[in-house]
Amino acid sequence: MRAAVLRGGRMVYRDDAPDPVPGPGQVLVEVRACGICGSDLHFAAHGAEVIVLGSQLAGGAGGGTDVDLNRDVFMGHEFSAQVLEPGPDTQTQPTGSPVTSMPVLLSASGVEPIVYSNNTLGGYAERMLLSAPLLLPIPNGLDLKHAALTEPMAVGLHAVNKSNIAPGETALVLGCGPIGIAIIAALAMRGVETIVASDFSPMRRDLAATMGAHQTLDPAQGSPFDTVKAAVVFEAVGVPGIIDDVLLRARRGTRLVVSGVCMQPDTVHPFFAIAKEISVQFVLAYRPEEFADSLRALAEGDIDVTPLITGEVGLEGVGQAFDDLADPERHCKILVTP
Amino acid sequence: MRAAVLRGGRMVYRDDAPDPVPGPGQVLVEVRACGICGSDLHFAAHGAEVIVLGSQLAGGAGGGTDVDLNRDVFMGHEFSAQVLEPGPDTQTQPTGSPVTSMPVLLSASGVEPIVYSNNTLGGYAERMLLSAPLLLPIPNGLDLKHAALTEPMAVGLHAVNKSNIAPGETALVLGCGPIGIAIIAALAMRGVETIVASDFSPMRRDLAATMGAHQTLDPAQGSPFDTVKAAVVFEAVGVPGIIDDVLLRARRGTRLVVSGVCMQPDTVHPFFAIAKEISVQFVLAYRPEEFADSLRALAEGDIDVTPLITGEVGLEGVGQAFDDLADPERHCKILVTP
Repeated sequence: MRAAVLRGGRMVYRDDAPDPVPGPGQVLVEVRACGICGSDLHFAAHGAEVIVLGSQLAGGAGGGTDVDLNRDVFMGHEFSAQVLEPGPDTQTQPTGSPVTSMPVLLSASGVEPIVYSNNTLGGYAERMLLSAPLLLPIPNGLDLKHAALTEPMAVGLHAVNKSNIAPGETALVLGCGPIGIAIIAALAMRGVETIVASDFSPMRRDLAATMGAHQTLDPAQGSPFDTVKAAVVFEAVGVPGIIDDVLLRARRGTRLVVSGVCMQPDTVHPFFAIAKEISVQFVLAYRPEEFADSLRALAEGDIDVTPLITGEVGLEGVGQAFDDLADPERHCKILVTP
Repeated sequence: MRAAVLRGGRMVYRDDAPDPVPGPGQVLVEVRACGICGSDLHFAAHGAEVIVLGSQLAGGAGGGTDVDLNRDVFMGHEFSAQVLEPGPDTQTQPTGSPVTSMPVLLSASGVEPIVYSNNTLGGYAERMLLSAPLLLPIPNGLDLKHAALTEPMAVGLHAVNKSNIAPGETALVLGCGPIGIAIIAALAMRGVETIVASDFSPMRRDLAATMGAHQTLDPAQGSPFDTVKAAVVFEAVGVPGIIDDVLLRARRGTRLVVSGVCMQPDTVHPFFAIAKEISVQFVLAYRPEEFADSLRALAEGDIDVTPLITGEVGLEGVGQAFDDLADPERHCKILVTP
């Protein structure tokens, strides 16, 4: 079977990936589209550090991410697919049905995230396994390329839900990569009346405006906090220093939602946050109902992700696509269409 | 007039402090008791750094704490007093009435915090000025020494209110100095059923148990997080490293309330917090109604602060008391009784 795998820090194409066989409760599907996520780029470049951090969190006893970087790693967690064949004793949609799923595989040995694995296939492959109880039919004839964005858009929806923002409160979104854009779309869907977005890239600022930002700012021209009095700040950059800059510059009582995944140690001044009684909500992923809500929003046209999709490659092109995504002027989301 | 002032990093006694004269809306009072706060100790030792940080927060343009450390600094913000005489055209309680107030002075030039000032007197003095609209009568014959603890107990009450903790949720309080103890008392008053407190000092652990902790832990014997599954963690230590340790060890979804005032830059791993969707609420001080609630809790016997008061000195003894407070085995709260 054809697949793109992480090998020695690079995504490489192979045509001899093992053919997956569905077990009970599992469904073999044909991948139709899979988005490349920033976390995939980060894992490709810094996988060893991610594994160490995961292990620290799990108590240092190897209970974290169980991935061997010396073997091929399967990735791809933003996918749409069509049903091929259920496993034994498994009820599912008819063959050919368009589906998506949260990136989690249920198996006899437990719950496997579909994210980085030496064993569990992800969406950078011709075929993969999904879990029958988690399959969501893709309704309304939604383009399967759009449906592949259910996952990143759910991340934005979750961040907005966790913020408890009210429509009359001003939102400032720092960083307009795919997650910042997903947050903007979710804020617009929630009816937030003043959405301000900040990014160094003109292309990303344009995209932010298209997706619902009422005002966009170039931080090279001055701190966004000099212009905007925001009640809620969404940090979707994820590099060291950003959090402390928010603590220093944000107004009193700011609710900061951190969805940018900064993997490095970071320096903050707690005093800044204390003096202004700032709250910081760190967020990750989404709840199952938010994943379903995200799919519904795409299928019903509440969110149109067409402008986000800036490229499309086959499995042979994944390595090059990872390189190309480094340039914010060229790309937002590249889809892999096996 | 007699007072203790900060001069060259030390608290010194002087008998020639200027006699305060109440303006319109102000009331001259005789200080009966004033608690020594950890933030006073910190300001005495690191005042220059506090001023720099305040100035950074205010935009670097000198808009922060306007204190000249080369001149005498008045301090003392946890006080009880008796009314001496109102300013011109000012209605207030009869002479001799026992009162307290939030440490804020309203004047023609604006609102002055009573905390560190070259001009505005604090409670480390025979007499001081308070604001008539902010005066609270001390009811029920409450001991004026106890009433001086209205302020620190309000800090604990505010931290607990901001946490939104429910009675059935487990609270872990890290650090049992005066603020940790105030948090424990407020948690007990709120009916929280499982209050766990951690401190290296046996004397402070005993005090924590007396004030309402159901279990106390010595962190020298192992991380409290190995023993307690807490929904809400109160950080009342305020030294670098504590926040990151909580982020690393706390359970998923923990609400961390940071009331320890760490003035130094601190290193954190945002990834730990993201992976567990931790929220961090930084807190400072209290709202006016919480200050009043705190006084009511003391006056009605809901909180008995007797065990907290471990020493009493006159104005001549303030310098020595500042030194003595460094030893957690000897003291919790020392009152200055001018």
